[in-house]
Amino acid sequence: MYMTQGLRRATKLTPNAVALISERRQFTWSEFQDRVARLAGALHGLGVRADDRVAMLAFNSDRYCEYYYGVFWSGACVVPMNIRWSLPEHIYSIKDSEARVLIVDDAFQALATEIKAACPSIECLIHAGDGPTPAGMLSYEALIAEARPAPDAFRSGEDLAGIFYTGGTTGFPKGVMLPHRALWTSAMGFGAGAAVTPDDRMLHAAPLFHIAGSAMLFSITAYGGSHAIIPSFQPKTFLDAVEAYDATLSLLVPTMVGMLLQAPELAAANTSNLTRLIYGASPMTLAILKEAMLKMPETRFIHAYGQTELAPLATLLGSDYHIPDSPKAAKIRSVGQPMPLVEIEIVDEAGHEVPRNVPGEVRVRGPNAMLGYWKKPEQTAAALKDGWIYTGDGGYMDDEGFVYIVDRVKDMIITGGENVYSAEVEIAIMQFPGLAECAVIGVPDEKWGEAVHAIVVPRAGEAPDPEALIAHCRSLIAGYKCPRTVAVRAEALPKSGAGKIQKFELRAPFWKGRDRRVS
Amino acid sequence: MYMTQGLRRATKLTPNAVALISERRQFTWSEFQDRVARLAGALHGLGVRADDRVAMLAFNSDRYCEYYYGVFWSGACVVPMNIRWSLPEHIYSIKDSEARVLIVDDAFQALATEIKAACPSIECLIHAGDGPTPAGMLSYEALIAEARPAPDAFRSGEDLAGIFYTGGTTGFPKGVMLPHRALWTSAMGFGAGAAVTPDDRMLHAAPLFHIAGSAMLFSITAYGGSHAIIPSFQPKTFLDAVEAYDATLSLLVPTMVGMLLQAPELAAANTSNLTRLIYGASPMTLAILKEAMLKMPETRFIHAYGQTELAPLATLLGSDYHIPDSPKAAKIRSVGQPMPLVEIEIVDEAGHEVPRNVPGEVRVRGPNAMLGYWKKPEQTAAALKDGWIYTGDGGYMDDEGFVYIVDRVKDMIITGGENVYSAEVEIAIMQFPGLAECAVIGVPDEKWGEAVHAIVVPRAGEAPDPEALIAHCRSLIAGYKCPRTVAVRAEALPKSGAGKIQKFELRAPFWKGRDRRVS
Repeated sequence: MYMTQGLRRATKLTPNAVALISERRQFTWSEFQDRVARLAGALHGLGVRADDRVAMLAFNSDRYCEYYYGVFWSGACVVPMNIRWSLPEHIYSIKDSEARVLIVDDAFQALATEIKAACPSIECLIHAGDGPTPAGMLSYEALIAEARPAPDAFRSGEDLAGIFYTGGTTGFPKGVMLPHRALWTSAMGFGAGAAVTPDDRMLHAAPLFHIAGSAMLFSITAYGGSHAIIPSFQPKTFLDAVEAYDATLSLLVPTMVGMLLQAPELAAANTSNLTRLIYGASPMTLAILKEAMLKMPETRFIHAYGQTELAPLATLLGSDYHIPDSPKAAKIRSVGQPMPLVEIEIVDEAGHEVPRNVPGEVRVRGPNAMLGYWKKPEQTAAALKDGWIYTGDGGYMDDEGFVYIVDRVKDMIITGGENVYSAEVEIAIMQFPGLAECAVIGVPDEKWGEAVHAIVVPRAGEAPDPEALIAHCRSLIAGYKCPRTVAVRAEALPKSGAGKIQKFELRAPFWKGRDRRVS
Repeated sequence: MYMTQGLRRATKLTPNAVALISERRQFTWSEFQDRVARLAGALHGLGVRADDRVAMLAFNSDRYCEYYYGVFWSGACVVPMNIRWSLPEHIYSIKDSEARVLIVDDAFQALATEIKAACPSIECLIHAGDGPTPAGMLSYEALIAEARPAPDAFRSGEDLAGIFYTGGTTGFPKGVMLPHRALWTSAMGFGAGAAVTPDDRMLHAAPLFHIAGSAMLFSITAYGGSHAIIPSFQPKTFLDAVEAYDATLSLLVPTMVGMLLQAPELAAANTSNLTRLIYGASPMTLAILKEAMLKMPETRFIHAYGQTELAPLATLLGSDYHIPDSPKAAKIRSVGQPMPLVEIEIVDEAGHEVPRNVPGEVRVRGPNAMLGYWKKPEQTAAALKDGWIYTGDGGYMDDEGFVYIVDRVKDMIITGGENVYSAEVEIAIMQFPGLAECAVIGVPDEKWGEAVHAIVVPRAGEAPDPEALIAHCRSLIAGYKCPRTVAVRAEALPKSGAGKIQKFELRAPFWKGRDRRVS
């Protein structure tokens, strides 16, 4: 159970078929595997050893695919960095993971220099961009050209494959430690659920640094399918790529689907080859789904639910359940059934299973589970008990084992497919002068699903400026985490008897008559 | 990665849906799981501990399904016994595996008493039949009724799941040690390849003691599908069961498919629900395939290739490739591509990979590989090198990674889906008086694919009686292994310079103009 196996198998199947295609380059499977082995050799040459961490900060590219497999092949661990993080967040993740090498593309080369200056663990920067290699960096292509191919380290099973950072409930990102076994399980389960074959070509439009994106890379490779890559999602770029690369499937967050439906190019685009579109990270409304099916009649929709701690797949709702007005469409509000290999239970606060159709916390057990949070034994102990991952999501299970997510136990906002933990935002806000208290909630947003909204209570005599507060947040945390709107409130925030802020009261006026369903 | 997980997940999905159905009984998933936990509790009560072996000798039944999961649940290991073995073979396998408990049905209760008398390791016999429990045996139903459910032992990964006996090249069956990880991999790969869903119901007609049968049990369970069971394959029983139990898929060896096509009941039978038929253990001729497709127009065919050492799945040829006159039908003579997670290479005698389309020995690497042969380190070392299982099959791989089996390196005959190692038969033959030498080969047979044929050379002055020789073999080895025909030959057998019998010369006249393709 090693991640490089999928690559090796696919290369064996069709060595001369295209494995990776993008605007700039294309590689066959044997070229891809050769470059992966050379990248591993280059990393060894730089002193990278088993268990060392190698980070990457870049938009999607074929090199991002090589990065994952090359690091696995070398025996080291990946640390994919969120491109939307602020500088302090980047520095935190590098310091926390003690990565020795950082690979960047053109867009992040300046930022990488700043990161390296603040992080003594980084011994070298590798420039995997298309422009000239900046001074003080190594050229990715030169390294590949000069390196001897390394033998596969055959890391497998419980060996750590990577550290995937996710928003932290306590104000710091947590490094989710995923072993090869977990990535492999998720890859297998997804490929089975979406019936991936060697005839498939995945269009990577969602970010490859995200576990949902990388899971697609691993899964499609494991089933022998190939990859087309665009740097990031834009409706026109996406539609052009579907056609140019004969993409048969892709993964988008619902926000992207919404953008696609609004794009004037959609009407004239040929999406007939795109037989499956996976959406995840947040639910699709029936209205959007119906519109999408009307406008993309050849495409079937599949919903994936999970979280980073589950590498990330927990459930799938297959395309059968996405056909409006069919009997199975009654399950459309669910996130589907646990994928094979995964068990799900709904439990009360004492950890006892509740009856069907009764809400509780969703917990998940299976070989897709993380090893724990990097250097965070207490948070690991809270999230991982007796082999169960406590998702922090509230939900119920119906009589056929379909899971419905009704709330988040952890106080999290999902905006454009990104998780924002309100605690993290609140900690940033409270560093702004003149505040007595604050609360961050998600409010409905047509484009992003939810938007981050802050309610602040000033100290007596203070009058904080919302614009300045937002700018202050931007200096500390990623843009998508910052409040889009700020309400200044004179009276104290509503609290429970135990002094806990009653966020549901704050949320209520925004969500009146709406469905804050989350998944 | 534990085998009981599939059961637990399926039970969670649909506790009240039918899990097992047969002529005599039916159980829901929660009843099935409860009986499994009670069987485990009963085994503990009998002193069975982790790693102990529990054998079963029986026709197919719902209890065979309970046996597998109950033994896994208890922490012990299964030893499924071939119902066609002779008494000495049964005794050999029990003595070799040191099984402590033997479960039998009505058909084998007399034999079980003989086995126990010869095998001191057997502490008790459990009668899982429908007739009265014989003296000296424990009642399976009474044990289940009286036992307390045991907690799941959660055996997983490298833990030994069972010992599966396969014919031995040196005259003794070899116990293939399969860990949970291997059974689980095969189950996942098959379910993905055949697109198994919770809506599926498998009809178990091929024997459940065989790894191909048990792999179907594990796979369909892992994907949430249910099971219908008939004691053994008969065309009418099979057709009646397909209709009565709404079976959506089944596995047959090609000999069974041939029998089905000859059955007068087929014309009137309704097989429209049977969407997929998996065949394995030997190839389907195009003539039979075309006839089957004509007579069963709703059914699609899937070919599975593997061996016990691979738990057992190595490749799948999907239904796409079974549509005559379609472009993909060009691959119909292959056994398909390696299933996900599995790598295959074709190597020469020195273990170096040969070019595409050049024959060599097929070797397979993946998490489906056995741990080794039980108590046979030398044979393990010969079959399992650097993680590769050397299949003993000769074959080649085409440019798209499809594998074609052209010969068996190991001198094996496949008759009616059963492997017969000629060495085992030859050892039995040579115990007959008056023989100088002998050779056993496979000859073409309409019904069985191949039939076992013996060529014997008498000592000077001796005139062995073929009928007596066959009867002699029957006292030593299973009926299907015994020669169906015996040729007495005066001159010495043809030999290579190294003195090795040249079986291809002996086979040639029988196979002239025919295709001895095997898989």
